[in-house]
Amino acid sequence: MVIDMENMAKQRIAGLRKLMKEAGIDYYIVPTADFHGSEYVGGYFKMRSFLSGFTGSAGTLVVSEREACLWTDGRYFTQAQAQLEGSGIVLYRMGEEGVPDIWEYLEKNAGKRQIIGFDGQVMDAEFGKKLEQRYQLSYEKDVAAPLWQDRPPLSATAVWTLSAERCGMSVAEKLKAVREKMEEQGAAHLLISKLDDIMWLYNIRANDVDCNPVALSYTLVSKDSAVLFIQSRALTDETAGYFAQNHITVKEYSSLGAYLESCEIKGRIWYSGKDVNYFLYKCIEKRGELIDRENPTELLKAVKTPEELESIRKYYLLDSVVLTKFLFWVKENAGREPMDELGLARRLDRMRSEIDGFLDLSFETISAYKSNAAMAHYSANGEHSAKITADGFYLVDSGGQYMGATTDVTRTIALGSITDEMRLHFTKVACAMLRLADTKFLYGCTGRNLDIIAREPLWQCGLDYKHGTGHGIGYVLNVHEGPHSLRWQYKPESRETVLEEGMIVSDEPGMYVQGSHGIRTENIVEVVKEQKNEYGQFMGFRHLTYVPIDLDAIDIGSMEPSDIERLNAYHKAVREKLSPYFEGEELERLKNVTRAV
Amino acid sequence: MVIDMENMAKQRIAGLRKLMKEAGIDYYIVPTADFHGSEYVGGYFKMRSFLSGFTGSAGTLVVSEREACLWTDGRYFTQAQAQLEGSGIVLYRMGEEGVPDIWEYLEKNAGKRQIIGFDGQVMDAEFGKKLEQRYQLSYEKDVAAPLWQDRPPLSATAVWTLSAERCGMSVAEKLKAVREKMEEQGAAHLLISKLDDIMWLYNIRANDVDCNPVALSYTLVSKDSAVLFIQSRALTDETAGYFAQNHITVKEYSSLGAYLESCEIKGRIWYSGKDVNYFLYKCIEKRGELIDRENPTELLKAVKTPEELESIRKYYLLDSVVLTKFLFWVKENAGREPMDELGLARRLDRMRSEIDGFLDLSFETISAYKSNAAMAHYSANGEHSAKITADGFYLVDSGGQYMGATTDVTRTIALGSITDEMRLHFTKVACAMLRLADTKFLYGCTGRNLDIIAREPLWQCGLDYKHGTGHGIGYVLNVHEGPHSLRWQYKPESRETVLEEGMIVSDEPGMYVQGSHGIRTENIVEVVKEQKNEYGQFMGFRHLTYVPIDLDAIDIGSMEPSDIERLNAYHKAVREKLSPYFEGEELERLKNVTRAV
Repeated sequence: MVIDMENMAKQRIAGLRKLMKEAGIDYYIVPTADFHGSEYVGGYFKMRSFLSGFTGSAGTLVVSEREACLWTDGRYFTQAQAQLEGSGIVLYRMGEEGVPDIWEYLEKNAGKRQIIGFDGQVMDAEFGKKLEQRYQLSYEKDVAAPLWQDRPPLSATAVWTLSAERCGMSVAEKLKAVREKMEEQGAAHLLISKLDDIMWLYNIRANDVDCNPVALSYTLVSKDSAVLFIQSRALTDETAGYFAQNHITVKEYSSLGAYLESCEIKGRIWYSGKDVNYFLYKCIEKRGELIDRENPTELLKAVKTPEELESIRKYYLLDSVVLTKFLFWVKENAGREPMDELGLARRLDRMRSEIDGFLDLSFETISAYKSNAAMAHYSANGEHSAKITADGFYLVDSGGQYMGATTDVTRTIALGSITDEMRLHFTKVACAMLRLADTKFLYGCTGRNLDIIAREPLWQCGLDYKHGTGHGIGYVLNVHEGPHSLRWQYKPESRETVLEEGMIVSDEPGMYVQGSHGIRTENIVEVVKEQKNEYGQFMGFRHLTYVPIDLDAIDIGSMEPSDIERLNAYHKAVREKLSPYFEGEELERLKNVTRAV
Repeated sequence: MVIDMENMAKQRIAGLRKLMKEAGIDYYIVPTADFHGSEYVGGYFKMRSFLSGFTGSAGTLVVSEREACLWTDGRYFTQAQAQLEGSGIVLYRMGEEGVPDIWEYLEKNAGKRQIIGFDGQVMDAEFGKKLEQRYQLSYEKDVAAPLWQDRPPLSATAVWTLSAERCGMSVAEKLKAVREKMEEQGAAHLLISKLDDIMWLYNIRANDVDCNPVALSYTLVSKDSAVLFIQSRALTDETAGYFAQNHITVKEYSSLGAYLESCEIKGRIWYSGKDVNYFLYKCIEKRGELIDRENPTELLKAVKTPEELESIRKYYLLDSVVLTKFLFWVKENAGREPMDELGLARRLDRMRSEIDGFLDLSFETISAYKSNAAMAHYSANGEHSAKITADGFYLVDSGGQYMGATTDVTRTIALGSITDEMRLHFTKVACAMLRLADTKFLYGCTGRNLDIIAREPLWQCGLDYKHGTGHGIGYVLNVHEGPHSLRWQYKPESRETVLEEGMIVSDEPGMYVQGSHGIRTENIVEVVKEQKNEYGQFMGFRHLTYVPIDLDAIDIGSMEPSDIERLNAYHKAVREKLSPYFEGEELERLKNVTRAV
């Protein structure tokens, strides 16, 4: 099977080169994006995966006559290396020292007179604008399309609505808040193409992207109108009525380009250059003065309402109960009965689906054993699914979409003997997660201030994890959400977001040793206000996740007394929160695994 | 005396209002700056202090017909409040919640048609450019000048040179490095007005600003010329010969404006808008395309050469020996013989001046007892100098200029009984300083990543210090130097600087309780490379300062085992480094105060 796939990639790249030649294109860029800059994309948009054979969720392919190269990030280095083997495609490990990014690669290789091609609808405006300053571009066509005979169609799942009560804000209130931000920026129009922002604004959901409850759509908000571009086949009379009632004008999804050419535009147009695609940007560029700024919906959406938070806390607890029971089962039965990664993922998914209010998974469950867990976003599948025995670490990163929350949680458990090194890594990661969750900080801090609190216990040992420490999470929406995050890298060009009360964020340090083991311990926490005094407003976090941390893998000797206190305090909370959902032997077990050490 | 001063400020503001009226100015801004945006300024430039009576080193006065307001930062809140009492000048505490900055104040109070006045030579271009977008400006004149009858003249101290050996780089090598940066930016000319940058570039020094060994000067560097504008009366035949030998054209200081109007300009002009004054900016604005970017000299100067580092290490040790002996004496004699803040400062200054190679102090010694130390930059003087007894905390922040280093160090010692709260604060500050110095981080971190390592022990208790954690330090140059710093606040508009091997930086957490006590523990550390492995290049710090931390004020019970280890390791190093300079009873004392706890 693997060999076939390799040949496939070679053949497809060759086919693309032929089409490039016909179109007069020297370098063709295939990012991983839909028309909306979504992180995860529907089947129709998986062109990069189709062409290269690399199935990770993030990556960009650049093809020239001479070379084919793929850029991906640290989560996927191992997977990409494996999947690209024999394809002739060169892997560029993003973020590693001395590895050029795509821009630098083009600067070095492409002459200024050469033509850079890409499908303008799947390229963000920001990068397109940078490219157009240096190169001639060909962006109007999806050049590779003819190669993909059995390409899946655009999704058009049924649109449904969330009540204002459930969201804590009505559409009218949200539009009012957005228009206030527009007023502040002096913008007469706001073009949003980011799907979760649009879902949030109109209190709607759908299922056009696996695990992301969104509908393919755009919206143009003006002072006195709100126009939603959506596939009419995704609407019922009921949803159409809902839009009418909320004074939202509905137009066909595919008509946006033409609409932007002809609609009345008075005053400045606000768009987000990192989200809006280059094709749309070229449409609005001609229509008036532009403001390139993050959508106002991003920050509004990130600060959860009290109603959302109440619901989130409830579902995180139910979700924690299920994961805890699942982990009990795995630990008890590993080595006793046959199990493999995929089987365990399916078992957990089934257990989660029995929670009242369950809608979907929030992402494909990562169920990874031993060295497979060293690939941070490894996914077992029908072909690769390691057998699990009573030995080493098992990692499971999973989450659900519920009618009232989106969850995300990772635990790693020891199924049998582990080495001293594994134990040390596990302990450092656990301490890192708990330290960050326990930190107090003055209002005004961003994720860049806090990231080191989690990373320092590892950095102190010369270790690191090559991913961010935390990301925002949607409410019945995408499991990855901005604008805040916990990262340390300095990027002069990107704005940071101050952590606000009511935001929720993941706290997920990890440790990965290729060929050996992968560890990640992830809780979701909410940002809360602490004391306010003469020094300012102090902020902190509160756990939303209550799942035991495996004491069998903890090395108490390498912990500070305060780390032990934090672990015990967390386990006491886990015990108290979860106990009502456990009984008999399982309850005893809960008490045991959350005992003070 | 105090009452006279108050009347003085009132009279002077009234006089200024009269001059403003004559000049048709509605709001007049008096920053604290010289023509070069220096942090500390010579006597000629202390107009804000002359007008307001507030003598702190940082502050901006804004006067309108209706109001007079002064902005200053957390270091000076207490002092400014005291000095402004009765002056009618309103104090704006910068950085406090709800306190508008000057821009916001003007936005709220000044109409768009009103005229904002300031002396363009002492206003940075950046702020001037912001103002000119909204207001009409009057910037050609130093309007307040006629009020100041006995204004000191411009300093013109003798210029002297540092050998290339002492600096580790010749002028030619430095000009080459600067011209490479100009090439990178596509700049044909570089206008530098920042004094320490100019001193660094030409390996020269002078004493035009107290404690800052700089000469009032400007320079214009082009591809094949370097023109230095300097007061000819500050030069001797020898220094003139030095400039000639190094192919530096010397012109009169005051002739820069006229030169910029008439000299040949081909290509883009690089200037630093936060340093170059508005008047000069208006001169070059007409002459061609501008690049507003931090001077290339800033980063080059911050990374010390191996020769500089070797010399710095040597002088920091000698400086540490003197401070340690001084603190021994104070602790032994407090309560036994009469002493006051000023007397102690003079004693320390005298001791330091006996070090071979001593040139000057690097700033006025801060010698502060009990509640006086709560004013972070308090300075005792002939009128205020508290008597010191065997009780409470004594803080001393001081440093020297040597022929081979600029030092800066703060210690706080307990002279007798202290409260539990004081002990806790002292311990947290000591742990904070040592934790930061001991932290390991991946290359790429900036000061904003690291600041929290020092601040977290205090934040965890709901405490904070209202100043940065660290600043760069010059080499026989300014005690405060950029471009790197250790701060947490997010300022989207300011660029951060990655910490590089060979930079030196202060590590100075503190804790201040108004009316009670002030604590600061400051070491200077150098940035060093640690291990490089698959995770990247790890970086760390190495202490330059070796002065005991007062164990009498330490509460071991509130420390983590790792904090105790760090304290003991530091004291072991202090003991080893200082022992050769101590003998007899003093050596025994050194061993005792650096004992393991």
